[in-house]
Amino acid sequence: MGCEQFMLAIDKSADDFLYRQVIDLITENIDSGTLRPGDRLPSLRRMSKRIDVSIPTVRQAYIELERQRRVESRPQSGFYVRGLNANELVRPAPRFRQSNKPVPVANRSLMDRVYEGLHQPDFVPLGIANPCMAKPAAKALHRAMKRVMARAEERSIGYAPSMGEPGLRRQIAFRYLDTIGSNVEPDNICITNGAQEALLLALQAVASKGDVIAVESPTYHGLLELIGSLGMLAIEVETCPEEGVTLSALRKTLDAHPVKVCLFSTTLNNPLGVSMPDDMRQELVNIIDERELVLIEDDVYGDLLFDGHRPKPAEMYSRSGNVLTCGSFSKTAAPGYRIGWLLAGRYRDAIMRLKRSYSCSSGLLQQLTLTEFLASGTYDRYLKTLRPVLQQNAQRTRALVAQHFPEGTRTSKPVGGAVLWIELPGNVNSAHLFDEAINKGISIAPGLIFSPCARYENFMRLSFGHPWSEEIEQSIVWLGRKVQELAGR
Amino acid sequence: MGCEQFMLAIDKSADDFLYRQVIDLITENIDSGTLRPGDRLPSLRRMSKRIDVSIPTVRQAYIELERQRRVESRPQSGFYVRGLNANELVRPAPRFRQSNKPVPVANRSLMDRVYEGLHQPDFVPLGIANPCMAKPAAKALHRAMKRVMARAEERSIGYAPSMGEPGLRRQIAFRYLDTIGSNVEPDNICITNGAQEALLLALQAVASKGDVIAVESPTYHGLLELIGSLGMLAIEVETCPEEGVTLSALRKTLDAHPVKVCLFSTTLNNPLGVSMPDDMRQELVNIIDERELVLIEDDVYGDLLFDGHRPKPAEMYSRSGNVLTCGSFSKTAAPGYRIGWLLAGRYRDAIMRLKRSYSCSSGLLQQLTLTEFLASGTYDRYLKTLRPVLQQNAQRTRALVAQHFPEGTRTSKPVGGAVLWIELPGNVNSAHLFDEAINKGISIAPGLIFSPCARYENFMRLSFGHPWSEEIEQSIVWLGRKVQELAGR
Repeated sequence: MGCEQFMLAIDKSADDFLYRQVIDLITENIDSGTLRPGDRLPSLRRMSKRIDVSIPTVRQAYIELERQRRVESRPQSGFYVRGLNANELVRPAPRFRQSNKPVPVANRSLMDRVYEGLHQPDFVPLGIANPCMAKPAAKALHRAMKRVMARAEERSIGYAPSMGEPGLRRQIAFRYLDTIGSNVEPDNICITNGAQEALLLALQAVASKGDVIAVESPTYHGLLELIGSLGMLAIEVETCPEEGVTLSALRKTLDAHPVKVCLFSTTLNNPLGVSMPDDMRQELVNIIDERELVLIEDDVYGDLLFDGHRPKPAEMYSRSGNVLTCGSFSKTAAPGYRIGWLLAGRYRDAIMRLKRSYSCSSGLLQQLTLTEFLASGTYDRYLKTLRPVLQQNAQRTRALVAQHFPEGTRTSKPVGGAVLWIELPGNVNSAHLFDEAINKGISIAPGLIFSPCARYENFMRLSFGHPWSEEIEQSIVWLGRKVQELAGR
Repeated sequence: MGCEQFMLAIDKSADDFLYRQVIDLITENIDSGTLRPGDRLPSLRRMSKRIDVSIPTVRQAYIELERQRRVESRPQSGFYVRGLNANELVRPAPRFRQSNKPVPVANRSLMDRVYEGLHQPDFVPLGIANPCMAKPAAKALHRAMKRVMARAEERSIGYAPSMGEPGLRRQIAFRYLDTIGSNVEPDNICITNGAQEALLLALQAVASKGDVIAVESPTYHGLLELIGSLGMLAIEVETCPEEGVTLSALRKTLDAHPVKVCLFSTTLNNPLGVSMPDDMRQELVNIIDERELVLIEDDVYGDLLFDGHRPKPAEMYSRSGNVLTCGSFSKTAAPGYRIGWLLAGRYRDAIMRLKRSYSCSSGLLQQLTLTEFLASGTYDRYLKTLRPVLQQNAQRTRALVAQHFPEGTRTSKPVGGAVLWIELPGNVNSAHLFDEAINKGISIAPGLIFSPCARYENFMRLSFGHPWSEEIEQSIVWLGRKVQELAGR
């Protein structure tokens, strides 16, 4: 292989870790086909010389690539590019390089139909990412709410302050301290109508109509729809299925386009279910700070990593205060309570006014109930029982897909949350699959809605956030058969 | 008096009723001082000749002016301009004519401080318009909610559809049919996070940053703050304390400025507490339709007219579908539930997408609870007991103000709702009064925040929406003494 071309890409003046640049370099060469399965990577010494970085740095990169299953080490021989595993997602969008520019958000009528499907009462709910429904906390929440109603009778139907019930804001701050050792000022937390309103307030506080917002590709359709509603433009940034946003791709995007805000999920992004390593978070924040951008973090799944380890949101790495984190209880307790929050940082006053003028305040009774739910320790105990249910559902779903979907199907390997991202054989249009599934009474999320410009036609998102059942099992089997059919046409 | 100048103002080609033009004509002449207290109006015959309209039309105008207490009839003699009654508000802003143009919304830091005062737990709450707290429905709502939790256990913590729980939308539609005989399609009702979000969605659906929004003067500060947050401009339209928006003033405003949307409360506007007569509503809608504008109606107090008669919202007069009505349960049942609605009309699909992308959906448990509360008839029975409490509170508040505030104080005469608009002697700055009251532990709403450009310095709004108490009585007496003091300086 020709290492010469590597020379161009390594930029020692850049602030990010050199070993990451080495990783990006090799990954790009694998993705472009320059390096193929079975090819041997240059030896550590040779690589070190050619691209002029130290041997330990190259070694660190190779080891990380092995961890990512992109290369494998063979004893006494060196590192080799791995062959594709039939069931393993390698790149979220093989055709990504075709074009990448800021675009208005498309597909909104398809989104309409997806949402319609979600609220048909008798449908099999494989289209909605609603982890806590896998083991609903309804009974415990109802008990807490009844205690609140008895204690705070008339007050509990009155207005909450615009920024939210002080007790709940203290509980949220305490959780940040307790789970990740981060100091969050309760006064800087704004309680919102779910994370969706937190995202709205954050975007409105820092950007305007026509501004360019960088998003992960693929990304949650709710973010795209919000960007579209505000008349902003979205530009996609490539991700890798193991680490989330590819930072080299992000840099290129930022160099080429007037991006104002990055709107990412560094922990358990939806639909990939991937979590960014800690050192990459720091690097991401460095990029944001250097370029004086704003990062809005959609961190609604952070409590739902299967292993229970909660990474620090990117905000905790920032010294500039240019990171705004959005959280929620919709994925971890009660979707219908519509209670989320925004760590408003230095935008606190602007956010408070926006919140007040957009919706006055959020529901007080639900805030008081969640305060009780958290303070009593019930929330934490509940999460401990929810995570293994989700993990088992994930394993079952992946196994069924491996067994019943046709060759050429690949799946993500989520480390938490409640969704599986699936690449179908190239000729399968998931919008057609969606139509067939709706007719059968099954809701799914077609890949097209996870991109502002209709990439991911042959992808779909499958949820495992409901109690496992024979019906769900049969529905996945049915979907596999239907994909076989569509692939065979 | 010289009737000649009247000739110019009557426009027989205009679609609105001629008698209203006659009323406007005379009112303007009284306001400008051309006609003074004690002056005799021209006889019916003479007026009819001079301005070339029929005698019955002139008579209709004179009778209406008498009803409005602007003129009085003396047997065998004719109609005379009335003298000012010491306690009666005549014009909401005597200095209105000084300037009137579209402006960005000012006073937001004063609004911050007013809101802070509202959420001090031990403050006497004379600053917040929260009618249902005068007789809280907490117990009945709690009972309904417990029934819902028992019946719809797990479902009740899940997501509602974006447009809202179908059962609640049917109940709201049924109420329109039942109380005013209007046919509203449940499918066109969007459930929102209080009326405030309904206003946000409505404004975003029909206008953009920089657009000019006509508002009543004075108007609810929450509307002004929303207009400000969206980067729109507000232009004030004069009102009269008996009928709300003055239509002749509206026409002049529309002629002179590029207004895109009118944002009015035709029923019980806040802070005047006045309700527009039915024929004026029709005329207002005609103006909207002719000029292809949009009217957004903030109709949150409609169920709270003291006499229980609910006028039709302006929307019901419209054939064009260019009227959007915002309603809420925050003033009539539970402020903290954050449940309002928007009659979205022909903007339904755009509104649905905005709602979905701004906050997904509204709280399901509260929606199910209100459905139960309405369907069981409890809501209507509750309103019947709430209205007389509010009316009595209003009378008591007016009587105390008449007794304890200095000469030159004038008050509105609300026909429903929970607020009294008070004009203080000209040299009293209500922002100073606000500061003194906050120090004393009393929250009030200073007049300045009811105008985008700080008119109404010597006005204030006093709420009577809490249970009457010795403490409230003493606070009003204290305020009166403080105003005496400030007026004497």
